Amino acid sequence: MALTGVLRPGHVQIRVLDLDEAVAFYTQILGLVETGRDASGRVYLKACDERDHHSVILRKADRAGTDFYGFKVLNARTLDLLETDLRAYGVQTERVRAGDLLETGERVRFHAPTGHLFELYAEKTEIGDTLGYLNPDVIIEDRKGISPVRLDHWQIHGEDLDGSRDLFVNVLGFSLTERILCEDGKTDMAVWLTCSNKAHDIAFVRDARSDTSHHAAFLIETWKKLLYAADLMAKRRVSIDIGPLRHGITRGTSIYFFDPSGNRIETFCGGYSFYPDMKPYTWTWEEMGAAIFYHTRELNERFLSVVT
Amino acid sequence: MALTGVLRPGHVQIRVLDLDEAVAFYTQILGLVETGRDASGRVYLKACDERDHHSVILRKADRAGTDFYGFKVLNARTLDLLETDLRAYGVQTERVRAGDLLETGERVRFHAPTGHLFELYAEKTEIGDTLGYLNPDVIIEDRKGISPVRLDHWQIHGEDLDGSRDLFVNVLGFSLTERILCEDGKTDMAVWLTCSNKAHDIAFVRDARSDTSHHAAFLIETWKKLLYAADLMAKRRVSIDIGPLRHGITRGTSIYFFDPSGNRIETFCGGYSFYPDMKPYTWTWEEMGAAIFYHTRELNERFLSVVT
Amino acid sequence: MALTGVLRPGHVQIRVLDLDEAVAFYTQILGLVETGRDASGRVYLKACDERDHHSVILRKADRAGTDFYGFKVLNARTLDLLETDLRAYGVQTERVRAGDLLETGERVRFHAPTGHLFELYAEKTEIGDTLGYLNPDVIIEDRKGISPVRLDHWQIHGEDLDGSRDLFVNVLGFSLTERILCEDGKTDMAVWLTCSNKAHDIAFVRDARSDTSHHAAFLIETWKKLLYAADLMAKRRVSIDIGPLRHGITRGTSIYFFDPSGNRIETFCGGYSFYPDMKPYTWTWEEMGAAIFYHTRELNERFLSVVT
Amino acid sequence: MALTGVLRPGHVQIRVLDLDEAVAFYTQILGLVETGRDASGRVYLKACDERDHHSVILRKADRAGTDFYGFKVLNARTLDLLETDLRAYGVQTERVRAGDLLETGERVRFHAPTGHLFELYAEKTEIGDTLGYLNPDVIIEDRKGISPVRLDHWQIHGEDLDGSRDLFVNVLGFSLTERILCEDGKTDMAVWLTCSNKAHDIAFVRDARSDTSHHAAFLIETWKKLLYAADLMAKRRVSIDIGPLRHGITRGTSIYFFDPSGNRIETFCGGYSFYPDMKPYTWTWEEMGAAIFYHTRELNERFLSVVT
Repeated sequence: MALTGVLRPGHVQIRVLDLDEAVAFYTQILGLVETGRDASGRVYLKACDERDHHSVILRKADRAGTDFYGFKVLNARTLDLLETDLRAYGVQTERVRAGDLLETGERVRFHAPTGHLFELYAEKTEIGDTLGYLNPDVIIEDRKGISPVRLDHWQIHGEDLDGSRDLFVNVLGFSLTERILCEDGKTDMAVWLTCSNKAHDIAFVRDARSDTSHHAAFLIETWKKLLYAADLMAKRRVSIDIGPLRHGITRGTSIYFFDPSGNRIETFCGGYSFYPDMKPYTWTWEEMGAAIFYHTRELNERFLSVVT
Repeated sequence: MALTGVLRPGHVQIRVLDLDEAVAFYTQILGLVETGRDASGRVYLKACDERDHHSVILRKADRAGTDFYGFKVLNARTLDLLETDLRAYGVQTERVRAGDLLETGERVRFHAPTGHLFELYAEKTEIGDTLGYLNPDVIIEDRKGISPVRLDHWQIHGEDLDGSRDLFVNVLGFSLTERILCEDGKTDMAVWLTCSNKAHDIAFVRDARSDTSHHAAFLIETWKKLLYAADLMAKRRVSIDIGPLRHGITRGTSIYFFDPSGNRIETFCGGYSFYPDMKPYTWTWEEMGAAIFYHTRELNERFLSVVT
Repeated sequence: MALTGVLRPGHVQIRVLDLDEAVAFYTQILGLVETGRDASGRVYLKACDERDHHSVILRKADRAGTDFYGFKVLNARTLDLLETDLRAYGVQTERVRAGDLLETGERVRFHAPTGHLFELYAEKTEIGDTLGYLNPDVIIEDRKGISPVRLDHWQIHGEDLDGSRDLFVNVLGFSLTERILCEDGKTDMAVWLTCSNKAHDIAFVRDARSDTSHHAAFLIETWKKLLYAADLMAKRRVSIDIGPLRHGITRGTSIYFFDPSGNRIETFCGGYSFYPDMKPYTWTWEEMGAAIFYHTRELNERFLSVVT
Repeated sequence: MALTGVLRPGHVQIRVLDLDEAVAFYTQILGLVETGRDASGRVYLKACDERDHHSVILRKADRAGTDFYGFKVLNARTLDLLETDLRAYGVQTERVRAGDLLETGERVRFHAPTGHLFELYAEKTEIGDTLGYLNPDVIIEDRKGISPVRLDHWQIHGEDLDGSRDLFVNVLGFSLTERILCEDGKTDMAVWLTCSNKAHDIAFVRDARSDTSHHAAFLIETWKKLLYAADLMAKRRVSIDIGPLRHGITRGTSIYFFDPSGNRIETFCGGYSFYPDMKPYTWTWEEMGAAIFYHTRELNERFLSVVT
C-alpha cells in the first residue's frame, strides 16, 4: 500500500502551571477547541480541521514540559507489528489500556534513546471537523484566535540523537529529510524526519538536556494568516520568541512563542512536499543560522537556550 | 515503512498537433522547463520544483490526447512486486526497456479497465531544481509564465469505472477520498483516489468514451498565483474553459484551459491533506454542480463534453 | 491643500423588501455592524474599518433599489462652496436638516442628470473602529462574515450619462479614470470617476433606465478574502451573479451577488492608485467584455439586464 | 477639486559610492528599470508601475546619503502658487531650469527647517508602464527582482522637526496622520504626514543629525511578495536591517535593508487609507517600540543609529 505504518503526530500531553490560564490561552488565543475533560482533570483539545477527538492534552503540573508524544498508526494490525519490531530492535514497550486517554484505544509506549516517552495508537474517536461527509462545504466557520488547522510536528532535544534517529528510520519507517552537521562535518547536530509527504513530522536536536522539548508546532494555512497570528499575539501580549520568519530548513515560515507556562509553541506554515526518492538536504555548521532563520542568518540566544 | 508503493504521478505523454506551437505554449505560458528531445522528436519538460528529468513528454500527432500515464514507485523491488500483483489480479503487463524514455528506467505497462495505458517505473535521472542539497536557498529564481511547481494529478474518463477503481485500490494501494454518486444513489459516477497525503492523485469519471482524458493538472502554490495565471492566460489569449474557481471536491481552487491542440490542462491549488484513516466524502447526484464548481453550483456544457 | 472637496462615498440608502431578513443578511453574511435604528424604522450599518456612524441605511419598501447616494465633503465651508457651485451650474439643491439621518449633519441634495438623488454632507458622528487613537493595535477582532473594510463605490445607470459625467468632473472635481466607448467610437458608454487616489469612487453607465443602480461595492482586503467571501456565499446559498473574477477596468477583483431583496452588491478588491496627472484608460466597444470580465472576455446576460 | 496641490513623492537623488555596483543592485535586486543617464553620469530609474520617466536618480559620490527629495504637484499653476506661498511663509526658493534632470520640467527648490533640500515640479515626461491606455492588460510582465510598484515615502531626520512639520502642514497642505511623543508627553518625537489617501508620504524624526535620511521606501503589493523580497535579499546576501515585520504606525508591513553604499531602503506594504476628516493617531514614548515594530515591541540599535 501507498500510505502505511505511522501516519502522523496524533497527540501531545503538555504540562501547564495554571490550568484555567492555559485553557484560556489554548482556546481563545491559539484557537483550539476544547473537546473534553477527564476524571484526573486533564483538558483535551483539537485543532479546527482535525477529525479525531483530540491532539493536545493539558495536564496541571508544577513545571512546564511535555509528558509524551503520540503517533497515530494505520490500524490495529500495524500497532501490533510495530510493537513487535520495536521489541525485536531491543526497545522495551508497554501497553496502556484503551480509555486511559478519553476516546482513545490502546497505546504502545516506549522511551526513545533521547529520553522522550513516545506512544503509538491506532484508534481514536472521530468527531469530525463540522463539515460532515455528505456534500460537504469547504470552509469551517466560527474559528477563534490563531486557529491552526492541525498539530504538525515536534522538535525535541536529547543526548543520544543517533539512537533516536536510527530507531525512527529503521523501525518506524521515517525518512531523513534534512540534517545540520556538527563542527566536525560528520556528526548530526540535528535531524528532520518524516513519515508522510510533509517536510518533517519530528526533529531531534543533539543536546545534553535529554527528554526536553523545544517546541510543538501547529499548522497555519498561509503566510498572511501567520501575520494575523503575530498581530493577535502582540495585541494580547503573548510572549513572542521570534517571527514571523522564514526557515531555510523545510522552506517553511514560522512564529515561535510561549504559552503562559513557558512551553514554546510554533505556528508553522508551508514546507515542501517530500517523497522518499528525494535526497536529504545537508546544512553545514557555519550555515546553521541560515538553516533556522533564513533571512537574518543568525540564531538568537533564547531560541537556543530555552527548552522545557 | 510509512511511504511505500506507488509514490506519485511521474509523467504523462501528451499528443500535440504542432510541436513548435506546443513547446512555446508549455514553456513560455505554462512555464515548464525543456529538459531534452529524443531521436523520435519527442520533447521532454519538467516543472520548476520537480527534481526528476521530466514529467511531461510532448509527441507530435494528428489528434490531441494522452498516450500514457506514468506513476513513479518507491524502488525496483516495488516495481517487481507490483508487476507480480497486477498479474495475480489478472492484468496483462509489459516491460518497456530502460532508455525508451530519456533518462528513465524500465517501465511496467498495463491497460486499466477504463482503457487507459498506465505505466510504473522506479528510476529516472535526478537533475534537481537548481537549489542543490547543501545549504540550499528557499526560492527558485527565473521562473517563467504560470510556473506550476509540479505535475499534480489526472482526471480521465472511461466506461468501466468500477474496474479501474478496484484495480487502483486493491492492487496499487490507492485510497478513495471522494465520490460522486449516479442518479441511482448507489453507483459511482466519479471517484477521486490518492496514493499520498494529497486529496487526489487520479480521478476516474464514468463515461462511454473510454481511454479519454479530461485534464492533466499542475500544482500552483497560492490562490494569488492562480489569479496571475488567469491574468497571463487572458493577456496571451489562451482559451480558458472556466476559472479561477473553487472546487467542492478536494476544497482545491482551479483554472481549466486548453493547450493549442485542445488538450485541457488544469492549474490546481490547495486541497486538504489526506490520511488513510479518513472517511471518504460522498456527493449526491443533485449536488454534482457544487462538487465541481462550488460557488456557482452549476456545470458548464464544455466542461462536460470535451475530452481528448 | 492636497485632499479637498468631496472626500468619498459616505452612505447609501438601500430599499429592502423584508427588513429582518435584510438585517440578517447585511450583518451576518456581509458582516456589517448595526449602529442604530431611527424612528421611521430605518436600520443603520457600518463596515468594520469605517469610523463614521454609518455607511449603509436600510429602508423597508415594496420594491428594491436605492433612495440616495451620499458623499462626505471636507468640511462645512466646502459644503457651502459646493452648494454655491452646483447652483451656479444650474443644479437645484435642497438642504436636509441635521439629524434627519441619525448622527448626521445637514445634507445638500440634488438630482444628477441621470436621475439619481445625490447628497453631500460634512458632519457625521465619529464612533471609531474599536482601535482608538492612542497606541492603537493593528487588527480589528471579532469580525463577522465577509466583513468588508468600507463602502467603496457605486455603479449607477441613466440616460444622460454625459450630463452626470460633466457635473461630477466640472463641479464636484472628480477625475475621469476609465471609459468604455459606444460602437460609434466616440460617445461614452460608461465612465469611471474618482475624487481620491482610488481607481473609482463612482461609475455611470448609459442606460435608458434612468435612476437605477447596478451595484454598491464594498472593499475587501485581499484576493484570498474574496475567495472566503465566495465560499461563505455558497455555503449560505447567497445568489451569486458572477465571480470571483478580475476586472480589466481598475485591475480590481470582484464578486457580484444579490441581497435577499435583489439589490446587487459587489465585494471589490484592489484597483490601482490614481493621481490626477494620469491619462484615463479607454476601452473600445469590441473589448467591453475584457473591460468588465478580464479573464472570460464575455459579459453575462444577467449582469447586463438586472438593475434596481 | 478633490485632489490638488502636492500629489506624491516623485523622485529622490541618492548618493552611491560605486555606480556600477549600485545600478546592479537597484536594477537586478530591487528591480527598478533604468530609463536614462545624463551628461554628468547620473543614472535614472523607475519602478515598474510608475509612468513618469524616473523616480530614483543615482549619483556617484564619496559618501552615501540623499541629495534632494522631489514632490510632483498638480500642474504649473500649482507650482507657481506653492512657490508664492513658500515665499510668503518666509522660505527662500530657487528655480532649477527644465532639463537639468532628464525629461523633467522646472523645479522649485527650498530647504526645510530640518535641513533637507526639497523640490517641487509639475512636469516630467510620461513614458508609461508598458500597458498603454487603450484596452490595457492588467499585469506587467518581465518584472525583475523585488520589483516594487512605486516610490512610496521617505523618513528623514533633523533637529527642527516642528519647523518642517508646520511648513508641510501649513504651506504644502499635508495632513498629520500619526505622531510619537517625546518623554515629556507633549513634544513630537516623530510625525507622519500625508498629501494623499496614503497613511504617509513623508515622516520627520527629531534628531540632532539634521539633513539626514533614515530610509526611502518602495511599495510592495502584498505581504507574500514581501516574503519573496526577503528571500531574494537573503539569497543575494543583501544586508537586511530588520524584517519582514509589522508596523504599529500605518499598520503597514516592511523590510529594512541597505544598498551597497549603506543607504537604508524600505520595502513597504499596506497601510490604511487616510482621509483628512480622520483624527491622527498618537503614540506615547513608552510604546515607541510597538509603534515601529509592532510584534516585538522593541527597537534595534542599528535601526536607531544609522542614518545617511
